Amino acid sequence: MYKATITVKLRPSILDPEGKAIEHALQSLEYTRLSGVRVGKEIELTVDAEDAATAEKLVDEACSKLLANPVMEDYTFELQEL
Amino acid sequence: MYKATITVKLRPSILDPEGKAIEHALQSLEYTRLSGVRVGKEIELTVDAEDAATAEKLVDEACSKLLANPVMEDYTFELQEL
Repeated sequence: MYKATITVKLRPSILDPEGKAIEHALQSLEYTRLSGVRVGKEIELTVDAEDAATAEKLVDEACSKLLANPVMEDYTFELQEL
Repeated sequence: MYKATITVKLRPSILDPEGKAIEHALQSLEYTRLSGVRVGKEIELTVDAEDAATAEKLVDEACSKLLANPVMEDYTFELQEL
């Protein structure tokens, strides 16, 4: 069993309206020293696999097919044995 | 200048409907070995501060006031000098 921690981020060239909204709210709260906000997703899941290679293959497939939009997003993940 | 990477997760006791929806979609795609999906946010931002202590204080304040909902969510963050 492995725990996978997947990070899905918008590609740097894609506009991030949620990040812009947060940045605007931070400015309104006088946090003018915080900038360049980008928002991504962190997905945690449990993988029932015998070895790390199988777990990696499963998670990579799930990311490319379902969890990330390959046109707009990049993903990375880490596996941790349970 | 520091880069802050903030992870905001729902507390373990809080139901995660987005995670459940993803888990259901994974099962439909025959990824039955992936389970226990939880979805959080990863927020990246740039902090204009002279030292790590000031940056940490600013980011911690922004998290507790704006970025995380203290009733339902936990947050952690890492700082990296730019």
